[in-house]
Amino acid sequence: MTILYLSGPGCHGGKILVVPLEGSHWVNMDILIRALHDRGHSITVVRTTKSWYIKEDSTYYDSITVSVTEGFDEEFIKPILQKLFDIERGKSSALNFFSLQLEAMYFIPKSVDHVCLMATTMFEDKALMQSLNESQFDLVLTDPAWGSGIMLAHYLQLPLVYNVRWITTGEGHLTLAPSPLSYIPLTGSGLSDKMTFSERVKNMLFYLLLMAQNNMILKPRYQAVCDKYLTPKVDFFELQQSADIWLMRVDFVFEFPRPTMPNVVYMGGFQCKPAKPLPEDLEDFVQSSGEHGVIIMSLGTFVSEVPSDITEDIAAAFAELPQKVIWRYTGERPSTLGNNTLLVEWMPQKDLLGHPKIRAFVAHGGTNGVQEALYHGVPVVGIPLFFDQYDNLLRLKERGGAKMLSIATTNKDTFLQALQEVLHEPSYRENMQRLSRLHRDQPMQPLDRALFWIEFVIRNKGAAHLRTESYKMPWYSYHSVDVVVFLLAAVISVVVISFVVIRYTCFKLLGMKKIKHE
Amino acid sequence: MTILYLSGPGCHGGKILVVPLEGSHWVNMDILIRALHDRGHSITVVRTTKSWYIKEDSTYYDSITVSVTEGFDEEFIKPILQKLFDIERGKSSALNFFSLQLEAMYFIPKSVDHVCLMATTMFEDKALMQSLNESQFDLVLTDPAWGSGIMLAHYLQLPLVYNVRWITTGEGHLTLAPSPLSYIPLTGSGLSDKMTFSERVKNMLFYLLLMAQNNMILKPRYQAVCDKYLTPKVDFFELQQSADIWLMRVDFVFEFPRPTMPNVVYMGGFQCKPAKPLPEDLEDFVQSSGEHGVIIMSLGTFVSEVPSDITEDIAAAFAELPQKVIWRYTGERPSTLGNNTLLVEWMPQKDLLGHPKIRAFVAHGGTNGVQEALYHGVPVVGIPLFFDQYDNLLRLKERGGAKMLSIATTNKDTFLQALQEVLHEPSYRENMQRLSRLHRDQPMQPLDRALFWIEFVIRNKGAAHLRTESYKMPWYSYHSVDVVVFLLAAVISVVVISFVVIRYTCFKLLGMKKIKHE
Repeated sequence: MTILYLSGPGCHGGKILVVPLEGSHWVNMDILIRALHDRGHSITVVRTTKSWYIKEDSTYYDSITVSVTEGFDEEFIKPILQKLFDIERGKSSALNFFSLQLEAMYFIPKSVDHVCLMATTMFEDKALMQSLNESQFDLVLTDPAWGSGIMLAHYLQLPLVYNVRWITTGEGHLTLAPSPLSYIPLTGSGLSDKMTFSERVKNMLFYLLLMAQNNMILKPRYQAVCDKYLTPKVDFFELQQSADIWLMRVDFVFEFPRPTMPNVVYMGGFQCKPAKPLPEDLEDFVQSSGEHGVIIMSLGTFVSEVPSDITEDIAAAFAELPQKVIWRYTGERPSTLGNNTLLVEWMPQKDLLGHPKIRAFVAHGGTNGVQEALYHGVPVVGIPLFFDQYDNLLRLKERGGAKMLSIATTNKDTFLQALQEVLHEPSYRENMQRLSRLHRDQPMQPLDRALFWIEFVIRNKGAAHLRTESYKMPWYSYHSVDVVVFLLAAVISVVVISFVVIRYTCFKLLGMKKIKHE
Repeated sequence: MTILYLSGPGCHGGKILVVPLEGSHWVNMDILIRALHDRGHSITVVRTTKSWYIKEDSTYYDSITVSVTEGFDEEFIKPILQKLFDIERGKSSALNFFSLQLEAMYFIPKSVDHVCLMATTMFEDKALMQSLNESQFDLVLTDPAWGSGIMLAHYLQLPLVYNVRWITTGEGHLTLAPSPLSYIPLTGSGLSDKMTFSERVKNMLFYLLLMAQNNMILKPRYQAVCDKYLTPKVDFFELQQSADIWLMRVDFVFEFPRPTMPNVVYMGGFQCKPAKPLPEDLEDFVQSSGEHGVIIMSLGTFVSEVPSDITEDIAAAFAELPQKVIWRYTGERPSTLGNNTLLVEWMPQKDLLGHPKIRAFVAHGGTNGVQEALYHGVPVVGIPLFFDQYDNLLRLKERGGAKMLSIATTNKDTFLQALQEVLHEPSYRENMQRLSRLHRDQPMQPLDRALFWIEFVIRNKGAAHLRTESYKMPWYSYHSVDVVVFLLAAVISVVVISFVVIRYTCFKLLGMKKIKHE
């Protein structure tokens, strides 16, 4: 068995311009940037004065800070999350769905405006653009959930690589690969790949809503920036599809099987590594759990607190268990807290998930946490809060590795029952262990695959041969509507003409006969 | 850079049942079988008493010989090829196209009948089926251009891996992955991925013809065997799509970019290896060419002779060149043969293509030869004869690596002109060298990738998680026709009801007013 790519052929010392997205997306991008730095590439990160996670100073990247007056920062995102959270808890599920959509209608234009402001500020800064041009980067690496990196790559005429899960039009695949709505559930729909008729109707309606949102909210904003700064004139959605390589943050152990394209490279779980030893005090706490083992709970980066009534219920439920619990929690200490529960402000989540004493993971269903649970084969009790969290957890649930609770109905009893089920029904653990085995059974580690393809783009100045240009066709040609109409017209013409000719001939013959008879 | 899979985790000593296809398809399968044998797997090959390429005795596989009275052997195939050849030469291109289709209508049922006879004979042989059942194979490896392996795998309830380029419904992808006819040219259509309106009409008509052929010729024959021997009742085309892994004998350096599926593994060029040194006499001949270098010519396994007038013209053209020529040719010695041309019955084609003195390859466009030219970066003068040869060469031509001639118009002048162009216009060689670099720039050798995924299926008893089951949906659900009709009906109902209500209300109001006025 020969592997062509052990230390990697050439192309060390590439120059990579990174246009990242904030929050958990940056957590991902940062891992990729460190790995690229370790392989000898020089990295320049574009951030804004309002950047929140993305620091200006770093030992492994240079940064360019774009000055903006309005930002996608903590003050911007926290109230939105709080509102989503309230909606999630307050109403019936049908009302929820529409309230959430309405909230999105407010949230999305605000964030697109921010991205467009960032892009405009860059393009207006002639000195910056000249310096970027002169820097002769090899490629732009961006998270296309934000469009600024896409437009910048086009401006600088550089190859484009995505670190992607979402784009403006939804889940990354949706724009790129044919996605029959009959078995590709849209994100946010809460559906699986096996749908009933009414679920398929819901999926279709959701798609129509998404398309309306794209064409009415996103397109005009991005297109205005394209029209002003990019020549020759280019359609933003075409630009979005023209990336050389899409490094997709899923794999098919996690995602339902679906059509894909040759330039999509799956790197789901690329952030996962074997667990490192725990700090001594934490290891002591974990070992004190004995045969019962440990449960860990975290609701992600954004949400350190949930409303106090739920907190009290969760703490009370934990207190009834023989397991030890480590809970990432920064709010007021719940009065019902048991002796078995350790509250922490931060925990080495990846290393805990890989510890042999771990029995279950209570999680909100962010992509990173779900991938890490899957990598280590730990069963999950999921409390999805917003965004893609429900859909992420659904994928584990469908494979029998997770139990899901709704935040609206979570109380001591439901929570305790869910935990007991996941702890005592062996299938949850067995299924997660099976997924873990499948995920690890790959010819190459996902991060190595991602690095290979980034360097492939540097070596070959793009990956045009992997990229269809069918997106440049008008929709009626792409879907062969013009051809079908033409062929139908041809068939109808032939039928009509034949009918007329036959009728005329019969008439003539009959006429002749009549004359003869007379 | 860590590679997970250097010596391969476990699963040596798998038991693999191979149901191959004859001719050049066997040449491919044989390479895979030898590699599997070298990795410690035991192989059993199913052949028939009429098998032509597939030998009964081998040092690296056991064989099972199915006794059939009619076979897909030399006597069967040669007259068909001769007829195709005559059509190809004799008529205008439009007439050609229809004559070839008519010939296919005769050829296809004959070969399907043969495959069904093979399958029926196997299923009727109770002792054989019992022994296969007891042998506890790990998987069936088959070339699905023939359906017998597919049905056998279902009968034995074994995981299924394809070594595939063609299936009964055309190019392997066509059934499996969504294939918009607007940019996916059907094989045999002679079209590229960028089509004019009239080319798209041709592609669509070709598709309709293919579907008619499938449903009228193939389906009834295969389905009859399924209905008789397989329980529970199963649809043959569903069975065909249910394979765990499709090892596809193309890659996207060769093939136009197109949608694909997660369980398709590309192994195009898996048969290619660095060239070995030539036999001494051949090396001497090659070296005697000096700075001018060598041209090699071969029209593949099936066709050792072309009509004598063309042979005379080709020989005369070669005689005018300063290059040396090695020509695989078994017919009568052409009278116009120059001193620079060596006629051989067989040549080490792969090693010659990798020789630094090689300048051009005159080829018929079989997949194996085209892939080898691409691997070694040698420009091609192509004379396609039949089957997929035109389409194979078209892919090189579109990338600027080949010049194509039609057998109908090949004479001394056209042939010489084509050769001169390929020899003296540097872009042909540059383009083939570029394709070669792209093809070799992979994280893993194609053969290793194929072996990995075969062993993955052994380790995990299939690859269900990579396989969509959407093919089980009725076509109107798959294409959301039912959903669209339902939604349209709903919209129309709302409009009609609103109209009626408004009309009724207006009428009432007007009526009231009238009454008041009166």
